[in-house]
Amino acid sequence: MSWEDNVRKVIPYTPGEQPKSRKVIKLNTNENPYPPSPLVEKAIKDFDAGLLRKYPDTQATELVNELAKTYGLKSENIFTGIGSDDVLALSFLTFFNSQKPVLFPDITYSFYDVWAELYRIPYETQALDSDFRIVSADYLRDNGGVVIANPNAPTGEELPLTEIEKIVRFNKDRVVIVDEAYVDFGAESALPLIEKYDNLLVVQTFSKSRALAGIRIGCAFGQKKLIGFLKDVKFSFNSYTLNPLTIAVGAAALRDDAYFKEITAKTVATRERMKKELKRLGFSFGDSKTNFVFARHERLSATEIFQYLREKEIYVRHFKQARIDNYLRISVGTEEETDCLIRALEELVSC
Amino acid sequence: MSWEDNVRKVIPYTPGEQPKSRKVIKLNTNENPYPPSPLVEKAIKDFDAGLLRKYPDTQATELVNELAKTYGLKSENIFTGIGSDDVLALSFLTFFNSQKPVLFPDITYSFYDVWAELYRIPYETQALDSDFRIVSADYLRDNGGVVIANPNAPTGEELPLTEIEKIVRFNKDRVVIVDEAYVDFGAESALPLIEKYDNLLVVQTFSKSRALAGIRIGCAFGQKKLIGFLKDVKFSFNSYTLNPLTIAVGAAALRDDAYFKEITAKTVATRERMKKELKRLGFSFGDSKTNFVFARHERLSATEIFQYLREKEIYVRHFKQARIDNYLRISVGTEEETDCLIRALEELVSC
Repeated sequence: MSWEDNVRKVIPYTPGEQPKSRKVIKLNTNENPYPPSPLVEKAIKDFDAGLLRKYPDTQATELVNELAKTYGLKSENIFTGIGSDDVLALSFLTFFNSQKPVLFPDITYSFYDVWAELYRIPYETQALDSDFRIVSADYLRDNGGVVIANPNAPTGEELPLTEIEKIVRFNKDRVVIVDEAYVDFGAESALPLIEKYDNLLVVQTFSKSRALAGIRIGCAFGQKKLIGFLKDVKFSFNSYTLNPLTIAVGAAALRDDAYFKEITAKTVATRERMKKELKRLGFSFGDSKTNFVFARHERLSATEIFQYLREKEIYVRHFKQARIDNYLRISVGTEEETDCLIRALEELVSC
Repeated sequence: MSWEDNVRKVIPYTPGEQPKSRKVIKLNTNENPYPPSPLVEKAIKDFDAGLLRKYPDTQATELVNELAKTYGLKSENIFTGIGSDDVLALSFLTFFNSQKPVLFPDITYSFYDVWAELYRIPYETQALDSDFRIVSADYLRDNGGVVIANPNAPTGEELPLTEIEKIVRFNKDRVVIVDEAYVDFGAESALPLIEKYDNLLVVQTFSKSRALAGIRIGCAFGQKKLIGFLKDVKFSFNSYTLNPLTIAVGAAALRDDAYFKEITAKTVATRERMKKELKRLGFSFGDSKTNFVFARHERLSATEIFQYLREKEIYVRHFKQARIDNYLRISVGTEEETDCLIRALEELVSC
């Protein structure tokens, strides 16, 4: 008998590498290639450090008010946390307490099964079809809850809103979480549906389209009652999570809608160009609506390309999971970074 | 049948009020009355906002290195989180997976039982003695883990290190957590014991003595294996919690040891003066080693004093819990704030 017998042992998630070298072209973690809004820099410079001696505003009012304004909601419809990982993990803990399995795709964000195992929540994965699309019919059966990433990651594919609504409507007796980490790059958000369905929780993040992966802000939207349960659990844990600097940074980013639209449009344009180039070089992929392309090559293996790019100091992501181990997830960088990527791949392919 | 049937329903912890008015003398949440080190302000001003587009350093290296230097440890002995609440909640989840009850005092930090209930961890509280002291013998029996706040809150009393060691030694087959949120104000830390005992986890915070309640940094110290399990669970949840601004602020605070010592000594001196004055006015209390005094009056009820002070815009804390509902927890403020408190109480007592 030892204290180790009572330890919850888990296999931790391995995040994408964060190389120290500034020379690396980092297309491995779906960060925004552009810096955050200049208003963010100003908010940090203007921040009164003396405020830090006091506990933060538990309601993150400044941030929640900006979110309400941005999305036309009331503050009672909004929950915030330390990145969407925090928001999603708390949502699993709060809403998935059934004996029945929670359903999510076999190929999706790799934290879902980790959280389910951590909290001992039963779950069953549903296979994507051969084109890596979510089959909505798989979610129209008895279950303990549903989680859909839309667009899905790492595939980048969008499930049309009509299909999302079908899933939400069928499952009105359990909570359906739609994880919209990448939605701003061209997919349709389920946000307008929250008025109609009290079992729908829409989760978003500041990490991708707001160019703030570093600040750790995630948010969830839903009807007042749903959000209320989430707040109760959160306040049982740690009343103060977002610090006032984080709140100021998040609010500042939301205030600069023009900049948000500008950098998002740039990323979408670069993605479409990147798709054409990749196709020309013998890659195939679905119709990504995100800031990455999930692609395989007609001749070269993913491992081979991954290693080759790494030597050229271009980092992309390779998941060693069944069905997708011959694919690479390549983030959309700046125009220049994309040029470098394409040039490197041209060299490789022409060898 | 409704989705609400599967919701984890909890009674959330109610944090101390954060009044909007700047006029209020806030002695209700044990914040440091002094601002954080000037190095903190500089770290914020110097921060490169462009870094925020990237995910943070998952290892919080800059902060962990400063902690290692400050406490003479290796980085493998250090875990960091979003305030000690985050660190403690994760520790409960990681280490307390026995069928046997976890033991902690009946009067202590009010989150312990909330976390145990949230994670469905069995627990049994052990009564403090009539002087509100922890009886170490109560923890020398079969159990699933032990949690001791030292000094204890809200009583302020220290359990001598020899008694802590007795508990740690007896319980070598389960994890003992010593929560040292207030230790810097005059108690003896259990930190030197971690070399000797692999089952001891010492938890500290930047919220009190580092004057950074707002920034949300907590840390845990222990042997490499113990810390490793905690990291595994943390990385299963949310790899990136401390953002780079938080890391820079925390590291800056640690670098200013002279300022830390100066404001801590001031608080201790004010506390000792406050004790003398309170005694003169008919209050009784234990020998607080913290930045608050937990006191009752020989004649006036806690509710009466609480209401009276509130009208004077002096906020203190009143817990409506059995055994302590006639006590007030009064944080140590600046010299001037303490003068105001004492003057107000003098008026009340002389009526």
